[in-house]
Amino acid sequence: MYPKRFEDLIHAFQLLPGVGEKTAQRYAYTVLDWNAEEREIFINAISHMKEDIHRCKICGNLSDGEICDICSDVNRNHHMICVVQSPKDIQSFESMQEYNGVYHVLNGTINIQKGILPDQLNIESLKNRIESENIEEIILATDPTVDGETTALYLEKIFKDHVKVTRLAYGIPMGSHLDYADSLTLLKAFENRK
Amino acid sequence: MYPKRFEDLIHAFQLLPGVGEKTAQRYAYTVLDWNAEEREIFINAISHMKEDIHRCKICGNLSDGEICDICSDVNRNHHMICVVQSPKDIQSFESMQEYNGVYHVLNGTINIQKGILPDQLNIESLKNRIESENIEEIILATDPTVDGETTALYLEKIFKDHVKVTRLAYGIPMGSHLDYADSLTLLKAFENRK
Repeated sequence: MYPKRFEDLIHAFQLLPGVGEKTAQRYAYTVLDWNAEEREIFINAISHMKEDIHRCKICGNLSDGEICDICSDVNRNHHMICVVQSPKDIQSFESMQEYNGVYHVLNGTINIQKGILPDQLNIESLKNRIESENIEEIILATDPTVDGETTALYLEKIFKDHVKVTRLAYGIPMGSHLDYADSLTLLKAFENRK
Repeated sequence: MYPKRFEDLIHAFQLLPGVGEKTAQRYAYTVLDWNAEEREIFINAISHMKEDIHRCKICGNLSDGEICDICSDVNRNHHMICVVQSPKDIQSFESMQEYNGVYHVLNGTINIQKGILPDQLNIESLKNRIESENIEEIILATDPTVDGETTALYLEKIFKDHVKVTRLAYGIPMGSHLDYADSLTLLKAFENRK
């Protein structure tokens, strides 16, 4: 019914998470009304993204250069590593303004059904960090979901003999996602870590 | 906090309607995980859109060529014009599978506050159609909102002496948008037009 190019655009938007046909149509109509400059901003943002956004070689966080701002900050406590699922979670921790250690991004969680095993996560480099750097504590801050818990238990098991392993306290409601937690809830969970 | 390119991407997504920071972040993370092919589909859809999607020279509908499929269909009743705000609304009418006339897309509604006056809408060409083609009826199918009503009243005033002017019956709840109406509600409104 729509012109082919417009259908293509609608389908392209449906590649985004949680975007159904109506929303995709709405986005497509918006794009249709954009001027050349707005389209340019959008296209550039997507096409230059991959080449310019790096993963920090130490922690796996998103970074402008090879090492992220947090790992290269000498004022931070490099003996304490907070282990998170995604760079998003780092943002949540940083907005809490209480944590001064560094991070390690797993890039996902163990999920047997989806075939995501520990060796597909960024765990090997965490092992190396614990062995080579003088790490005093790792804080497991995976989401309080089944997958997050599984991953935390796995990490606790392999690291507890080498380093102090703590977990965020259950202040965060089960089944939710960490990056949607408000700073206060996150602060409580951080203070009561066990 | 995020790398600059990633911030750019988040801001780009915020250009879309109803997309706040959290949603934009979610989209940006999805794009980050896309492979080259998926990004290519997305970029192509947006960059080729403008050059390949035309507006029908007769009715203003989105079209692959100069004249849209509906206007070039000889099996349709070209003496009856349904006047809509947007090409979206044509989709709703077509899915009703009852209307066999043609359309005219205004591309918006009169809105004094926003400075949208009748001469910025696709009304001049509607006038030309009514004068030159043998039009028997125009059906005003603008949204039942303040702006839609204003526009319908304006069109009724300038056309009622030249052609039969009808309006969709109030079966559609006030304040809603036409393209979200279900086919049955739209059918009722269509049958009871006055």
